[in-house]
Amino acid sequence: MPGISLHDAIHGQRAIRRFSTDLVPQEAIEQVLAAAARAPSGGNRQQWSFVVIRDDVLKRRIGEWYLDGWNVTYASDPTRPRNATYVSAETLAHNLAATPVLILACINRSQGSGPASLSAGASIYPAVQNLMLAAEDLGLGTVITTFHMHHEDEMKALLGIPDSVQTAALIPMGYPAEGEHFGGSKRNAVSEFAHYDRWGRTEP
Amino acid sequence: MPGISLHDAIHGQRAIRRFSTDLVPQEAIEQVLAAAARAPSGGNRQQWSFVVIRDDVLKRRIGEWYLDGWNVTYASDPTRPRNATYVSAETLAHNLAATPVLILACINRSQGSGPASLSAGASIYPAVQNLMLAAEDLGLGTVITTFHMHHEDEMKALLGIPDSVQTAALIPMGYPAEGEHFGGSKRNAVSEFAHYDRWGRTEP
Repeated sequence: MPGISLHDAIHGQRAIRRFSTDLVPQEAIEQVLAAAARAPSGGNRQQWSFVVIRDDVLKRRIGEWYLDGWNVTYASDPTRPRNATYVSAETLAHNLAATPVLILACINRSQGSGPASLSAGASIYPAVQNLMLAAEDLGLGTVITTFHMHHEDEMKALLGIPDSVQTAALIPMGYPAEGEHFGGSKRNAVSEFAHYDRWGRTEP
Repeated sequence: MPGISLHDAIHGQRAIRRFSTDLVPQEAIEQVLAAAARAPSGGNRQQWSFVVIRDDVLKRRIGEWYLDGWNVTYASDPTRPRNATYVSAETLAHNLAATPVLILACINRSQGSGPASLSAGASIYPAVQNLMLAAEDLGLGTVITTFHMHHEDEMKALLGIPDSVQTAALIPMGYPAEGEHFGGSKRNAVSEFAHYDRWGRTEP
């Protein structure tokens, strides 16, 4: 510590989808999970769980479901532009099992309360973002994905996750492969998405 | 720059719900929005919009809806513990309109695609978390809230937000009032929410 500045972490974040085979130390896993747990959650109830998956057999099975999720959504959708992000995501979909660590972010819910709506995400995705920023600080690449959700029930059965828990994201994590790097991601300018007092009023 | 370290920002984050009346400079608003825009989003589509609300008339109207949302959920629910977080959130609910800036985080959706599900949150709440961390770097307090959703349709009509856009969070922002401070929030230990390869296996 102190490590990277907040500014550099935020502005240098980039989805990393190709990983080296180097093992991720347990200490690093605990550090990114500790960062996740600092995030806000509704009523500070911290209704989250993180399943850290390193077992090869589990990763292979999850990789098959993930690839199926990719195929039935992105790969079969002709409206998705075949740009660099697509090609990178496609590579990940075919190689997920080779990722050193998969982290499954979950929300603990009351039994019988039905599928979580958008706003439930306010109590889990800030924690996921903390996890990814903290990983960057340790030189670890991550990417937030949701393709596993096409086989969520099978995932939960495989890992013994209770019915009352819902999965929110699967985050592959590892040291970036040669040629992968942080920084340089393309984003729109603030003026393209900021509105002042009324929708469409783009001047402050 | 470089400003605060990532580690200190993450570990010092705390919900701030009482604000001074000091104005928030436009430059600061643009900085936190620029940080938001660095977040990941599905396919890097950046389908987000942020409405920055400073007009007193708008804030008063939104404050009434927010208080109503608070009353029908938290205040009327006897299972909510009346702890410090509750009291602080109650104070905010009764004083929202006095907040210097309200930022409404929105998701742009295809028309006719129905209400967003949990996973849509993966493309907006990481940006909200970036915004809140960047605010902390500037000494600005924030808190992520969703009580406005009880009157989402009225909110959208008031602000001229299109049907195809859904609100995800309302983030009050301002310099902390005297007595408010960052840091010291209570969180569970990693061992309480981490599982290794199988649910319930808490030893790495």
